[in-house]
Formats: sequence, C-alpha cells, structure tokens
Amino acid sequence: MTETPGKIRVAVAGGTGYMGVELMRLLALHPRIEVRRATSEQYAGKRLADVYPSFRGRLEIRLETLDAGKLADGVDVVFSALPHGTAAATIVEALKRPVTVLDLSADFRLRDAEEFRRWYGEHPAPELLGQSVYGIPELARERIRDARIIAVPGCYPTGALLALVPLARAGAIAGPIVVDSKSGASGAGRAAKTELLFAEVQENVRAYGVGRHRHLPEIVQGLRAEGCSHSVVFTPHLLPIRRGLLSTIYVPLQSGANIDAIFRSSLGAEPFVQLLGEGRFPDVRDVRGTNEAQIGWTVLEAESMAIVVTALDNLGKGGSGQAVQNFNVRFGLDERTGLDQIAAVP
Amino acid sequence: MTETPGKIRVAVAGGTGYMGVELMRLLALHPRIEVRRATSEQYAGKRLADVYPSFRGRLEIRLETLDAGKLADGVDVVFSALPHGTAAATIVEALKRPVTVLDLSADFRLRDAEEFRRWYGEHPAPELLGQSVYGIPELARERIRDARIIAVPGCYPTGALLALVPLARAGAIAGPIVVDSKSGASGAGRAAKTELLFAEVQENVRAYGVGRHRHLPEIVQGLRAEGCSHSVVFTPHLLPIRRGLLSTIYVPLQSGANIDAIFRSSLGAEPFVQLLGEGRFPDVRDVRGTNEAQIGWTVLEAESMAIVVTALDNLGKGGSGQAVQNFNVRFGLDERTGLDQIAAVP
Amino acid sequence: MTETPGKIRVAVAGGTGYMGVELMRLLALHPRIEVRRATSEQYAGKRLADVYPSFRGRLEIRLETLDAGKLADGVDVVFSALPHGTAAATIVEALKRPVTVLDLSADFRLRDAEEFRRWYGEHPAPELLGQSVYGIPELARERIRDARIIAVPGCYPTGALLALVPLARAGAIAGPIVVDSKSGASGAGRAAKTELLFAEVQENVRAYGVGRHRHLPEIVQGLRAEGCSHSVVFTPHLLPIRRGLLSTIYVPLQSGANIDAIFRSSLGAEPFVQLLGEGRFPDVRDVRGTNEAQIGWTVLEAESMAIVVTALDNLGKGGSGQAVQNFNVRFGLDERTGLDQIAAVP
Amino acid sequence: MTETPGKIRVAVAGGTGYMGVELMRLLALHPRIEVRRATSEQYAGKRLADVYPSFRGRLEIRLETLDAGKLADGVDVVFSALPHGTAAATIVEALKRPVTVLDLSADFRLRDAEEFRRWYGEHPAPELLGQSVYGIPELARERIRDARIIAVPGCYPTGALLALVPLARAGAIAGPIVVDSKSGASGAGRAAKTELLFAEVQENVRAYGVGRHRHLPEIVQGLRAEGCSHSVVFTPHLLPIRRGLLSTIYVPLQSGANIDAIFRSSLGAEPFVQLLGEGRFPDVRDVRGTNEAQIGWTVLEAESMAIVVTALDNLGKGGSGQAVQNFNVRFGLDERTGLDQIAAVP
Repeated sequence: MTETPGKIRVAVAGGTGYMGVELMRLLALHPRIEVRRATSEQYAGKRLADVYPSFRGRLEIRLETLDAGKLADGVDVVFSALPHGTAAATIVEALKRPVTVLDLSADFRLRDAEEFRRWYGEHPAPELLGQSVYGIPELARERIRDARIIAVPGCYPTGALLALVPLARAGAIAGPIVVDSKSGASGAGRAAKTELLFAEVQENVRAYGVGRHRHLPEIVQGLRAEGCSHSVVFTPHLLPIRRGLLSTIYVPLQSGANIDAIFRSSLGAEPFVQLLGEGRFPDVRDVRGTNEAQIGWTVLEAESMAIVVTALDNLGKGGSGQAVQNFNVRFGLDERTGLDQIAAVP
Repeated sequence: MTETPGKIRVAVAGGTGYMGVELMRLLALHPRIEVRRATSEQYAGKRLADVYPSFRGRLEIRLETLDAGKLADGVDVVFSALPHGTAAATIVEALKRPVTVLDLSADFRLRDAEEFRRWYGEHPAPELLGQSVYGIPELARERIRDARIIAVPGCYPTGALLALVPLARAGAIAGPIVVDSKSGASGAGRAAKTELLFAEVQENVRAYGVGRHRHLPEIVQGLRAEGCSHSVVFTPHLLPIRRGLLSTIYVPLQSGANIDAIFRSSLGAEPFVQLLGEGRFPDVRDVRGTNEAQIGWTVLEAESMAIVVTALDNLGKGGSGQAVQNFNVRFGLDERTGLDQIAAVP
Repeated sequence: MTETPGKIRVAVAGGTGYMGVELMRLLALHPRIEVRRATSEQYAGKRLADVYPSFRGRLEIRLETLDAGKLADGVDVVFSALPHGTAAATIVEALKRPVTVLDLSADFRLRDAEEFRRWYGEHPAPELLGQSVYGIPELARERIRDARIIAVPGCYPTGALLALVPLARAGAIAGPIVVDSKSGASGAGRAAKTELLFAEVQENVRAYGVGRHRHLPEIVQGLRAEGCSHSVVFTPHLLPIRRGLLSTIYVPLQSGANIDAIFRSSLGAEPFVQLLGEGRFPDVRDVRGTNEAQIGWTVLEAESMAIVVTALDNLGKGGSGQAVQNFNVRFGLDERTGLDQIAAVP
Repeated sequence: MTETPGKIRVAVAGGTGYMGVELMRLLALHPRIEVRRATSEQYAGKRLADVYPSFRGRLEIRLETLDAGKLADGVDVVFSALPHGTAAATIVEALKRPVTVLDLSADFRLRDAEEFRRWYGEHPAPELLGQSVYGIPELARERIRDARIIAVPGCYPTGALLALVPLARAGAIAGPIVVDSKSGASGAGRAAKTELLFAEVQENVRAYGVGRHRHLPEIVQGLRAEGCSHSVVFTPHLLPIRRGLLSTIYVPLQSGANIDAIFRSSLGAEPFVQLLGEGRFPDVRDVRGTNEAQIGWTVLEAESMAIVVTALDNLGKGGSGQAVQNFNVRFGLDERTGLDQIAAVP
C-alpha cells in the first residue's frame, strides 16, 4: 500500500440493512475514508464481521446503538441509511456539528413541505427541505460540491431521471410519459415481512403501488424543475432477483428530436453512465454490484415514441454507490475513487 | 374410476418441448382424451416416461419420429406444438384426413398472407390463413365451435387481448396503447441457447424485441378486428422465472368509460378469467400451472389513463391450457374438463 | 361429473400456512372430500379465495378462528397443519368427538415421551403418544387402516426412511449412515423471519441444525423399530427453491446385499414411489407438486457403500400429499384418489 | 493513482467463458498486471466491452483467435481458461517461451499419467505432469514460488482439500470420508446445453457424477500425498445458483483429535480462509465474488464424527481468484493484491 493522504472520517447510521451493508462495503474499500462509527438497532454490540463475516479483516468495527447526539462526534461526514421518518430527526441533530450529511432516505428529497406531507406525513424540520441538494451527480454536479445535506435519490427516480432530464432539457418530450420499472427484492429492505419471504417472491412477479408509488413525486419534481409539465405514469414491479432495477420508459417525442445526439451530448462523457445506443438494451446483471447505469433506446417513428431502457443496481447507482459518488464530488476527489468496479458476470 | 363415454383420439406433434410436455400433461389427465401418438425429434424411440419420469403410469407411450403423412392416422384431433415454419407443412398434410387441428405455433394466427410474410417469411399454404380461427374462447367462442383449424394464440397476445378487446368493443380506448410484458424463460422454448442458460438468466432481467416483437401483429390484428385503430407499443422482457407472464397495459381512456362495468359484463362470467377488481393486482404465481387469467386495474383520473395488469401462465392460458380449452369448446364438452386446477402456492 | 358416493366431511386446522394451503388445494380437488371448516389465525374472517385467489370457484369457504372445542363438530376427519406445540392440545380436544385425526405437526410422531421432551419439551398428553400411527403408507399401510391418530411424518424422515427401512428390514446396512438433505424454503414455514427473506435465501445455500436437527430422532426411531442400531448422521441444508427435497444417503452395505432386489421387492409396486434404478438419480422438479417419491442409487463396490438419492416435494409426499394418501388408506379408498398428478415441467 | 512499479504482462487464453471472464475481471482490477492479449473462439474480433459491457473503460481490448504459437509472445505470464484437452497442447507450445503458466483446466492437475488417462484420455505431454505444482497456496505455498506450471485446482477439490489436508497432516482421520458438495451452475461452464437452461435448473436440484466425478482423483491425490489412505466418497450436486460451492464433509475422527486446534494452527493465519469455528456454518453468499473460503465444523462425540462445511465461490477461490492468488505468490507480491474484496450482500 502506498502513502494515502489524510482520511476523511465517517459515521454511518443504519449500517446493517441492505442499503447500509452495501454502503459499509463501499466505505470499507474506499481509500480516502475511515469509518469511525456505525449503528445498528438489531445488532448493536456485535462486531460487524459477526453479522457479515466477509468484513473480517477489512473493517473491524463494533456496531453501536444509535445516539443522535453522539453520531456526528469526531467525524467529518455522516451517512444515514436509516428509514424515512427516523432519518430526519437524527440528521437535524447531527447538523449541530460541522458535518456534511448524505441521507439515503426520502426525508430530504422533496423540496416542498406540503408535497412531503402528502406522501410521508409531517416533516420534523421543513425549513431544511430547501437546503438539501438532490444528489444525482450527472444532473446536479455543481450544486453538490458545496452542499451540506445531500439527499441521495431513490432507485426508481435515478433510473427514470437519468434518461428523462436530458430529454426534458432538450425539449424533446411531447406528451405523457410511462415509466414501467422492475426491481429486485432488496429494494424493499431487510425488515421481516411475509410478502418478502423467499417462497412468496421466487417464481413470482407483481405490480405494486400502481400509479401511486412514493417515488413518483421525486420523478415529477425532477421533471418540473426542468420545465417539463407532462404527466408521468409510474408502475413499479417486484421481481425475483436480489439486486437490480430495469426501467422501461415510454416517451412521446417532439418531431425532429434526435435522441442519440441528446444522450451523447448530455451523458456521453459520464464515468458512471454507459450509453449502449440505438437498438441495444441493458441487462441488469451487467451493472450488478457497481455504480454504473446503462441506457439503451429505440425510436418508433410511426408512433413518434421513444422507448428508453435504463438499468442500474438499486443498492449501487440507485443507492449506496451513488452516495459514495456524491461524497467524491463533494470532497473534490476523483469521482471513481472507491468505485472502480466491474460487474461480476455471471 | 367410473365409466367414461367414448374418448376422443388425439395425436401430438412435438410432445417434448416446453409447450409440448405441458400439453402432454394436460392431455394425460383429461378424462375424455386418449393420446394415441406423440412425436419428438430429440427423443424419438424413447418412452415419454424415460424423458419425463413423472408420466410413468399416467401416460405410457413411446415417442415417434414425425411423419406428417401418418400423423393424423386413426385420430380425431391433431395438436401441434411444433415451431413455426415446421408446423404449417405438417398441418397441411394432416388436414388431408378428417381431423381437427389445434396449432400452438404462429403459422395460422395471422390472417393476412402479406403480414405473415413480413414477420415470418413465405407461408406454405396462404389460402388456409383465412380458414383458421384465432382461439381465445372468451373472445371468439362461437367461431371455435365449428373450426377446423384453431390457431392457439401466443402468450403475449392472450395477455393483452383479454384486457384490450373488451375495452375496444366498448369504445373505451382513446389513444395509443403501451403493453409492457414480463415473461418467464420457458416462453423461449427448450432449444439450447447460451442466452437462455441458467447463469445468464438468473438474477437478470432484460427487454428484447423492443417495439418489434413478432407477437405485436397478433395484438394489432385483434384490435383492428374490433375497429380500434390506435397504435400499440409492445415491449417484452425476459424474467428469471420458469413460467408466468405479467402484462402491464397502459390505456388512455375515453372520458366516461366505466372500466369496471366493461370488464364485469364482458368477462365476469368466464370460468377461466378472474377479475380482481379496482386497485388489486395479480401475482403470476396465483395462475401458475393453471388455465386461469387474472386481471386487476386502476384508473388514474388526472391522466385519463387506465393501468390494467393481466397475469397468466405462458404454458397454460398462454399456450397448452388454452389449447385444451379450445378443444373442450370445439367438442362440446364442459369447458373446464381436464382443467380443474388450483395453483400450487407456494 | 358422474354420481359420487357420500362425501367424507373434513375440518382443517391451520389452512393458510404453506403446508395448510397445499392441503386445502388437495382437499378441494379430492372427489370424496367435503371441506366443512378451515381455520387461520392470520386470516380469520376472510374468504380463502381472498387470500389465495386461485381457490375462487373451487373452494368457497370463509376462514375461522381456531376453536378447539368446535373444530371437530359435524365432521368425520380433522386435519391439523398447526405448528408443533399448538397441535397437540387442539387434537386432544378434537378427539372427544368421534373423528379421525391426521396431524402434520411433530406432536404425535415420537412414541417415547422422554424422547419427545428432549427435543420439544413437555407433551400435553403423553399417554396418547403410543396410540398414534407414524404414517408412511409404504412402510405401515396395515396399521394406518384402523388408526385414530395418524402422525404424518416430517419431510426429511420420509425421504430418509423410504430408502433406509427396506434396507434395514433386509439386514443390508453394515455401518453408520450419513443423510445429507437439501430442502426448499417452504419447509421452514410462512412465518416472517429475516433469514427467510428472498434476498437472504436467493443465490445462497447453507447447512443448519447440523447433526442435531429435530427430524433426526424420527429417522432413528424408524430404524430402531426395524432392529437397525447403526448411528445416523443427518445434515439438512436450505436451498433457494420453493419446494422440493433431495436426500443423498450414504449407506455402508453388508457384503452380498443386493440393493436392486431389495428396492424392487419392497417398493416396486408402490403407486407413489418410482424406482429410477442403478445409476439414475432424481431431479426434484420431477416430483414437484405431486405425492411421488423418486429413488435412484449406485453401489461403490470398492468402498462397500451404497449412495441412495431420494426426491420428494416437501409439501407433497413430505407433507400434505402424504396426509391425503394416509386418508385414502384409512378410509379404504383407492390410494391415488385425489392424487392423480403429473409434475408440471418445466 | 499513485506511481506503480513495472507491470507484469499477461496473456489470457479463453477469456469469455465463465471462468475466463471472471479472470479478466480480476486481472483488469489488479494493480500490477497489464493484460496484453485475450483470446475467445466465440467472440474473436469483438471488443471485450461489446461482449461484457461492464469492461468499458476498465479493459479496452480486442479479443483474438487463439494462436498457440503467438499466445506467449511478449508476455511474462499465460493464464489459460481453456477447457481440458485443449489447454495442454496450447500450454506445451506456450512453454517454448520464457513464461510462467497458470492453467485453470484439469490438464496438469493429476501427476500420474496413467491416472490422467483413466479420467481424461491420453495426455499430449505426460512428461510435464510431474513438473506442475498443484496450486492451493494454503497447502503448497513454497512450491508455488518457483513453479513454471501452476495447475489451478478444480472448485470441488479446493473445497474438500482445504479442510481435509490439515486433518490428514495431523493424523486425525480415522475412516472413510464422505464429501457431499453443492455447486452453482456456472461451474458447468458457458456451453449451450439443454440441461443447463434456466427452465431446467431453476427450482431444481440433482446429484450427478455420483461417486465417479472427475474431481474425485484430485481429492484422492491430495490426501494420498499426505499419507492418508482412507477412501473418499464424493457426490456433487447442481443447485439453482449462479456461483458458489458448499461442501459438507463427514470425517470419522481419531479419538483425541482436536479439530479446533488443528484448524487454528494450520489455517488460522491465512488471509483467504476464515474459520467460523465450532457450531457456526458458512453461507455461500458470504464468499460470493471473493477469493475467500469459509469453514465451520462440529464434532458428534457419540459417533466420533466431524462434520466440516466449507464455502467458496467456484469462480473465485475455486477458480480465477485462486489463479490470481497463485500469481501473487509466484511473483512475490502481497497475496491480497487485486483481491481486496468484500462479498456484496445481499
């Protein structure tokens, strides 16, 4: 190992759920990060390596009970992988110290308190909603650089907005959008629920939250901010895979819109977006375990309709990977630091 | 066992592919059917029970090489589960005998020879295309009763048309339709292909034939026949499940259209269609191994959009089950004969 | 439908767990059974078809809260798919009426109260332990015919004893036995537990209860009853499949033992056992959804060791299917009644 | 990136099969390796990133047709992931240049030409058999340091020998050993075979090569070399997982043998072996995608039997990961170089 510059000290709230443990994995392998503290309600007092043996020798840390007042002590950054509702109060407390917060919950994603209330109930600190930055680096890199609260987006909005915002910015969208998403079961979290048992999910597929899922307002907010006022119809589906998210997006196109050119100019140089191009579509396995999104598309001329398919790992680019990417942007590191991954296939 | 009335004698061409073996299973358990002959290129000469042990004692038959001239000898009915292309020539030959043919391939589904050529190439007997009946009993029961050639529809068209034809007949469709379908791997057949290996499909999902799949013209043909001229955009996806097909269908609605009433009046009394109603959506596992289709829906008022979700087993109602249902209709039997199934859950 | 003779009236305690719903499916399709009552703690008050839509039109029944005093009212037979511990007290109460009981729990499987206490704790009615019959019809058909309590065996013991008892009876076993079993996740039941979540089980396999699983004493009891005193080492494994159980059994053989002849003479005529013979081994998919067990074997001459592989469906021959088979034996019906199944492959 | 010392130049024969692509992934991420050349029969002429998109930007290389005479040109090391039979001839040719060869096939694993012939047929260069080193670093580290041909072991032997060799060296094995292994489907390679189709493997499990699998002689050779002459009975099973191998090993113990002490002293300091200890058993998911092996065990005192369970990734420690570990040992690098992985869970 070569000399590393000073490390950035990090605390993690909620380090043993699915999003949390993937975050811990990425932080443990990140050359510029030192994990000082990680909390877990379920496993407080245990060593991380006792819960997830693969951390043995890579990150030797004992899990703590969450104490919001202590969480930010002696660290530069707080990552929160707590569930929505719990996260906000913890983060409000953490912000009393000079830390940057990266929140993986929904608590700071919606900018409008009224909209937040409609989907999640009362917010404990609505005045902070306007201060957070919605962290998709490809779409908001500059604002992330000096953010104090970075709201790491949900997996579904990331998969949708990466494709739709460039089209909206180019004025290419001509009508109502359909987003049909297929997600792995880890997206539902690690809480024990009958409907998520192996014998329920295996050899099954179903739609849920049809037309009314909580990630819809994030997608709409992202489009409205670009001046796109077309409606969005969104249907998530639960698939029998652990990780991965495929979104098939149906976009009525303005005549003359050149979707290839739009994607090439907006996303062509992005380190974590791979444009597969016209007529080639992604497999979720090719992004599994990585922070990469892949995008393919076709245009049906007769119907003036683009079909755009995006793939990402719901715990990677749709969660913890993107959190680390935001961290890298925020602290001026090479954006790939700690994210130099190649999907393990098969 | 009680006395059964005279059995109807049946031959099966292509009895060991995925569609074929499911057909054999249903025929073996059908109280009014006697399987006289079954062919298999791969296993000719072997006992069916040597290939699929579960048939031991239920259907003791030796598999034969396909001989189109002999296939229809001494039987009343020929079922063909041959691939498209091969099926037509075999069926033309079989029709020289006084038999009824139920074809599970695409060879007699499109009525227009020009359209057929576009998707599949030259048809060996285009003059027969107009004589077959497209066999979705819920939509064409009367014409099936005296059909000589029944083209059993593809799984995707069945899942789409069961929902769309009632809406089209009621004049409820107001604009372009999106059909986003998710299918199990058995739909791709049993031929050895790298892309269908377990290690390729497991933990993966991908779109294919985006906007240009061969089942699209069947869907369009079905809608055009009802006077619906709206465009259809169709995207199939391959899922890591063996059997099952879920289609999420986005339908712009005419104002005032009452989708509940339309489905109740058109499909409410169907033995093999279960209407789950507004706000409840099907799981493919609940139809697995059966001839049932389940349909749920919701209407997004602000967007004047119905989202209809249909589930079926691609080898059941999307294939061999529907073939037997057609058989029952054609021969005046109770439509449930041999199809008295309950999905094995989990 | 032809005239059926009088139906036998049945109550089911615990009808919506994995074992329970498979039992309900078999009972609903059984031509000689009328299900009068079914209980469910979780879904009491709901229609069965609201919980499992596939029962619509096949078994229209409303689920009830368990009331042990009422359970046996007006029925001839009580099936219990309650968990061990709960089952015994309920059954003791039910036996106050003139009913036959088929119990799918462990509560009446061990004959020795001391042994029961060691594995499960105090038994509420130890005096009844000696009265039940351990219901593997292939091994104890005569005693089942007039049993009042039939303890339907666990899935693991069925898979082991079907192979081992014939060998023990023939005096063919020469030393310590190893039983290495691989089971689907439905065997662990439908209670919500983190370790059974899809994202935990998928792409995983692990051993559990190594050398000390509660099904071990059932296997040992079965062998001791045949005079076989060799030790049994038993390791169950959890696999990412919903249903199915494969047991690989390593048996030191007496010199001169003819395993083919032993299996042919003991099991060759059994309707629900398929002997695949020397050098051919079963796939669990070939018994899925059925009451069949398949057995294959080989003998390693140099090591004087037989490797016997048995496959069954843990909810079929390893549970509810076997319960119905016992019922058929007990009531003098053709043993295949209601169990005329062919595995749905793929 | 910091200054790296001179890179070691590498060629890969067979870079797009399952073992090959995992090797490519590890080599691409290895800081001391430069991949100069990779061959692929199926994809020669294509860019690696066109076949496996995740390599884009990480390893930009065009795949070549295998030319044994050119393979070793200008490189220091040849990795071969060719199938057995093909590998030997290629390697004989490569050895004409001053290269070190790491072979992932079976062609140099058995030291005895007669034994090789029995299992694989005639060897093209039997005189080389005695020159290769069987590369399990934990068991043969010193000999690897100056090896010219390193035969990277099969996945099954690695899982068995890591546990058995320490026991054999300690003289702790008292009788015949049973190795019952459960493997993911990638172990069977990427050739298109019907039996490996998703719809065949999913929801299935089966034994194969029972008692006579080609990996058996490797296990026996490893034990005989340690003076252990007890017989080994070996049964592999195919599981519906992509990657991962669990071996449950039944070992009659010498009285007084202290298995904990044996494992601690032999493997306790190994960077890629994690001893879980008495009564704790590994999940294959905890080693997936890594070069780690995990080992748990229990001792049944009454039966004088140890049950040892080992888990590894068949493409990691059971293949390409171990190849890279051997490379690191051979070239005097820190053994963890390029293998600093944490399993991605879930």
